[in-house]
Formats: sequence, C-alpha cells, structure tokens
Amino acid sequence: MSSHPKIAQTDHTIHELIQHRWSPRAFDANRDIERSDLLRLFEAARWAPSSGNEQPWRFLLGDRRRSPQLFEALLAALVPKNQAWARQAPVLVLVSVRLTLEQNETVNPLAWYDAGQAVALLTLQATAQGLAIRQMAGFDREKARLGCAIPAPFEPSVIMAIGYAGDPESLEIDTHRTAEQTPRQRRPLGEIVFEGAWGRPIDT
Amino acid sequence: MSSHPKIAQTDHTIHELIQHRWSPRAFDANRDIERSDLLRLFEAARWAPSSGNEQPWRFLLGDRRRSPQLFEALLAALVPKNQAWARQAPVLVLVSVRLTLEQNETVNPLAWYDAGQAVALLTLQATAQGLAIRQMAGFDREKARLGCAIPAPFEPSVIMAIGYAGDPESLEIDTHRTAEQTPRQRRPLGEIVFEGAWGRPIDT
Repeated sequence: MSSHPKIAQTDHTIHELIQHRWSPRAFDANRDIERSDLLRLFEAARWAPSSGNEQPWRFLLGDRRRSPQLFEALLAALVPKNQAWARQAPVLVLVSVRLTLEQNETVNPLAWYDAGQAVALLTLQATAQGLAIRQMAGFDREKARLGCAIPAPFEPSVIMAIGYAGDPESLEIDTHRTAEQTPRQRRPLGEIVFEGAWGRPIDT
Repeated sequence: MSSHPKIAQTDHTIHELIQHRWSPRAFDANRDIERSDLLRLFEAARWAPSSGNEQPWRFLLGDRRRSPQLFEALLAALVPKNQAWARQAPVLVLVSVRLTLEQNETVNPLAWYDAGQAVALLTLQATAQGLAIRQMAGFDREKARLGCAIPAPFEPSVIMAIGYAGDPESLEIDTHRTAEQTPRQRRPLGEIVFEGAWGRPIDT
C-alpha cells in the first residue's frame, strides 16, 4: 500500500486516513458491501458538525441488489462517461441538501458547505473500512430529481459510487485507466493558506 | 476520555477520530499552537477531493502572536456571543470559497460543498493532534470581507477558532458552559438515509 501512486505526497505529516483517501473509478464488480458496513458510513456522516446543528444532508441509497430500481435510476442520470465505470460499483448514493432551515424555511447559506462536511466524514470512514468512494457532479440534475422524486426544498449535490477498489485494467476508457495510476496533484499550500492578509502566503 | 459527554453515542461503530471530534467553545488561552502543528491542519485540508480538482477553498490565518492584526480583525467581525469565547483561542481562520471556476469564471455549483469537505478533513486532522475547532457562521460577512480585504470572486463561509480545549468553567456565558457538557445530538439515521425511494427510511 505504501507505494501506491494515489497516496498523497504531503509536505507535512497528516493522518493516514486522510493521506490514503482517494477517488477511484475502478470498482470490484463482484464484491458487494455488507449492510452493516454500509450503515457505518452513514453513521459517520451523521455526526458531522453543521450550522445550528441543522444537519441539512440527506442520502438516497441505491443498492444494486437490494434496491436495484433506484440504482438504475441514479445510473441513468449520470453522464455517459460516468456511467461507463460507475455501473461496476455495488452502491450509488444521491446526496441532497436541504436548502432552507426547518425552523422558518429561510435560506440556509451553509447548507451545501455542511453537506460537504458530512460526506467528507463518510469518505474517511469508508477509507477506514477499506472501501472507496468517488463523488460525481457529472449527472443530469433534473433527471435525478425527477427520476428519484426529490422534493423541494431538497437539491441534489453529488452522486457517490461506493464499493471496493477494483482493477484499473477493467476500465473501458483509456484516460480513466491512466488516471487511476497518476499521482494526485494539489495546489501548493502557499496558494491556499494566507497569513495576516489576503494573498500573503503562509510561511511553510 | 472515554467517558467524556461529547463522545458520540453511535448506533453503528465509527472511526474514533470521527466519534471524538466535537466543537468546544472553551479553549486554553495559555496554550499556543506550534507552527508545525498548524501547517499539518492545512495540509490535511489541501488533500480534500473537489469537483474538477478545483480546490475552491482558501484559508486566511490570524494567529494572535504572529499575525495579531488579522486575529483582531476576525474577532471584531464575530457576533458578540462568539467574541465572548473565541478571544481565548490562539488562532482564528477565515475560510473563503472561490465561487467561480478558474478556467472560465462560470459559477462553480460545488464550491461551498467542496470547501466544506476540506474543512471537515482539517477538523479530523485537528482531532488527531489533540486540537479542537469550532466553526462559526455567526459573524458579519461584510465586516469580514472589508476588514480582511477579501476580493471577489471569493466569499467568506465560516470563521474557525482553533486551539487546545480548555476549562468549561472559564466560559462567561451560562448556556455556553452548559453546552460544553451536554451530549451531542443528531437526527436518527432513518431520517437522513433513505433507500429505494425518497422518504423511505433505510432499515437500520
């Protein structure tokens, strides 16, 4: 594992869960997720922080064995390039965001932000369990909303593919196979962390 | 630690980092954060996933010792109830979101969501290091934007207080002292996870 090209090459030491998390496209099509393992993922998301403890995140699960119709509805909403690989994952999940506060139905400006926090915890829990997740923004929102009957004030954010990582060679699309082996890249720390004033890179 | 009221009482086993993360208001005012420890937090955020690898998160650091003017500017932007406790933290950080894509300056619908993911990783890294974080939406956005000269297309999302947890008795406001000892509450899992169709609770 320690030589895997997707392990983050960090400038400063970080927890191994964060270092080892990445977003594969190749899933093992022959390996399902035990229900007890799946529940732990959502439990992790459940404990995320949120503004006013609003918890604006909702998860709609399509398990190819236990809820195949919804799995197919989510698959159908994906753009073709995502369908090409995501159909191998045993589970697809639509993440939706409650855009307004329950108390008074005014806009919750942190709704998307907090949903992102919940999913980030979910992805690390998955990493801890040896599971992998790739989130997709590449899907038809209206198709997802209609196909899954998502009611207002909820709004789809991403569709997640969840499963056990598979063989990159199983991927149909050339660039997807290549991407699976390419080291992860990020902006340098000084580009995202300023100290004292905007644009002044932190001394790293 | 295992009897601390803020450890999540989970229905399903989750990683201890996620279980132990919580958002205190009481910080140890006498304990600074070593610079090398602080850099690890941002490094963790850096490796978050984002749509198109856009990495729309930016962090503006005010360290009360090394960048006291910005620390004071951030403190001044907080609502009074947050100022009451946040002034004890050694570090305040303004999280900002790049609202448009760098490539073509069109709206990035996942910007807030992805920034939330980055901060969630940062909070878990903090937990791993024995640090604590509380995020605040309770601040004057215009005051923060002007006081810290945040340029478009960046938008402030939260201000984080970071430090080592302190004595709850040090908090000025009664409800804050109480909250520090109250068990964390979340919606039941069946309220946030549906299977097969919207509103159909997953069998937990």
